[in-house]
Amino acid sequence: MRIIERVSEMQQQAEAWRHVGRRIALVPTMGYLHQGHLTLMREARNHGDEIVVSIFVNPTQFGPGEDFERYPRDMDRDRHLAEGAGVGVVFAPSVAEMYPDGYQTFVEVMEVTRPLCGQSRPTHFRGVTTVVAKLFNIVKPHAAVFGEKDFQQLAVIHRMARDLNMDVQVIGHPIVREEDGLAMSSRNAYLTGDQRAAALRLSRALDEAESMALGGETRGAVILEVVREQLGSNGEVRIDYAELRDPETLKSVDEMKGPTLLALAAFVGRTRLIDNRVLRCRAR
Amino acid sequence: MRIIERVSEMQQQAEAWRHVGRRIALVPTMGYLHQGHLTLMREARNHGDEIVVSIFVNPTQFGPGEDFERYPRDMDRDRHLAEGAGVGVVFAPSVAEMYPDGYQTFVEVMEVTRPLCGQSRPTHFRGVTTVVAKLFNIVKPHAAVFGEKDFQQLAVIHRMARDLNMDVQVIGHPIVREEDGLAMSSRNAYLTGDQRAAALRLSRALDEAESMALGGETRGAVILEVVREQLGSNGEVRIDYAELRDPETLKSVDEMKGPTLLALAAFVGRTRLIDNRVLRCRAR
Repeated sequence: MRIIERVSEMQQQAEAWRHVGRRIALVPTMGYLHQGHLTLMREARNHGDEIVVSIFVNPTQFGPGEDFERYPRDMDRDRHLAEGAGVGVVFAPSVAEMYPDGYQTFVEVMEVTRPLCGQSRPTHFRGVTTVVAKLFNIVKPHAAVFGEKDFQQLAVIHRMARDLNMDVQVIGHPIVREEDGLAMSSRNAYLTGDQRAAALRLSRALDEAESMALGGETRGAVILEVVREQLGSNGEVRIDYAELRDPETLKSVDEMKGPTLLALAAFVGRTRLIDNRVLRCRAR
Repeated sequence: MRIIERVSEMQQQAEAWRHVGRRIALVPTMGYLHQGHLTLMREARNHGDEIVVSIFVNPTQFGPGEDFERYPRDMDRDRHLAEGAGVGVVFAPSVAEMYPDGYQTFVEVMEVTRPLCGQSRPTHFRGVTTVVAKLFNIVKPHAAVFGEKDFQQLAVIHRMARDLNMDVQVIGHPIVREEDGLAMSSRNAYLTGDQRAAALRLSRALDEAESMALGGETRGAVILEVVREQLGSNGEVRIDYAELRDPETLKSVDEMKGPTLLALAAFVGRTRLIDNRVLRCRAR
């Protein structure tokens, strides 16, 4: 497995692969890899001959006061995990390589970035779309695989790729969970034992909402009331948002008429966690 | 010569060329081709085996009340001119093909878009960078050729391509002028005989400033005073801006210390014309 730190070297490698007809699949990550990431890498093998994992803690997607500085990093461990998952190249540029002096260009998706995480973190998605556009131009993938835990991120990237005619297949992969249901996230490393237990409320709230929807409940307000109760019964968990949305446009849904995204974000201590599920109505 | 109207068809053609090692050179235009465009197409032949000219009057780069509707169009004539210049493909999509319902993504360059045309036309460059990013993803060129008449546009596209790691060589080509000095522009078609005569003041003002700089004048205020006098002695010409700027960063220059952009924009009647020259100081 090769580690590439330079943009120009990665572009040359990508061109060389494409020249001989090799398909490239990219898994963009911020590192501190967990089973969720490794699942994305296995999925990538279904879409490419050459698997590239990017590891880059992207400063432009963190707001002021967020956890850019303390975001967990462990390149040695990541390298071994990626190698074990059959990755050919880890692309791991420095911040200066990605955003040199004088940098001033951003890619912005409008409507679909506004609600949910976009409301809590107003410059977040501009950072995400900018870095993903850069990674697509650097790695030149035929396909790119993203986890559905960041559901809105995936919707935003789908929208960007379609709008800007990026010739990249954007693939979402279902959330990977711990045995007890907690969605895997590098940020779970921040949690104390008590917080880890409290964090379970997110996936349990999703389970409960799913049961209600399957049981025939279609009223958004009724479902969300139960979700909020499940999440927020004491001070360890502070709800950022709990909302029902159209899975593609992310427009608000009051009454379920088809598959509907239930999206959650909550602070557990100082740690902000997200989770989601697409709820299905009972067949009529 | 082939006319392609569909994004997917253009991408397939581009991939097929790249697969067999053909280099692609793109000349983006809004059509109503003139000698300036044809010169860009000849230049493109130095940079590619396959020459693609895009013809698309891009609505997102026109502001409210600007001339999007009345911008001159003549596809039959353009087609013949392009064919005569050795172009292999004209890419001529519809507005709906480029901006389908739900479109919501924009590419924005910050500092370098703010002065000059960016000040007079606040959403203009966002439209330009967005459509050029799309065209690069659709035509997949190795090189793209732009005229230096739109000097700021070229600086903005250089910046975008570098910042977003677009693997495209961005090439500027010197302004092509009518015999009497008027910079070629599709918008010259709007001018009446009297306006056409008055429009000459732009290139004459540039000539005069160039003589001053070569004669040893380095004070921006002194040069610009003469330029304004040359341009604006009566009501037929209304100056939009006349400024000295660094040719790369477009930062304002008070005292010339090296090659310096003199950029002009003026309304002649309702028609807004631009022109520019990079002034050189006398060797010391």
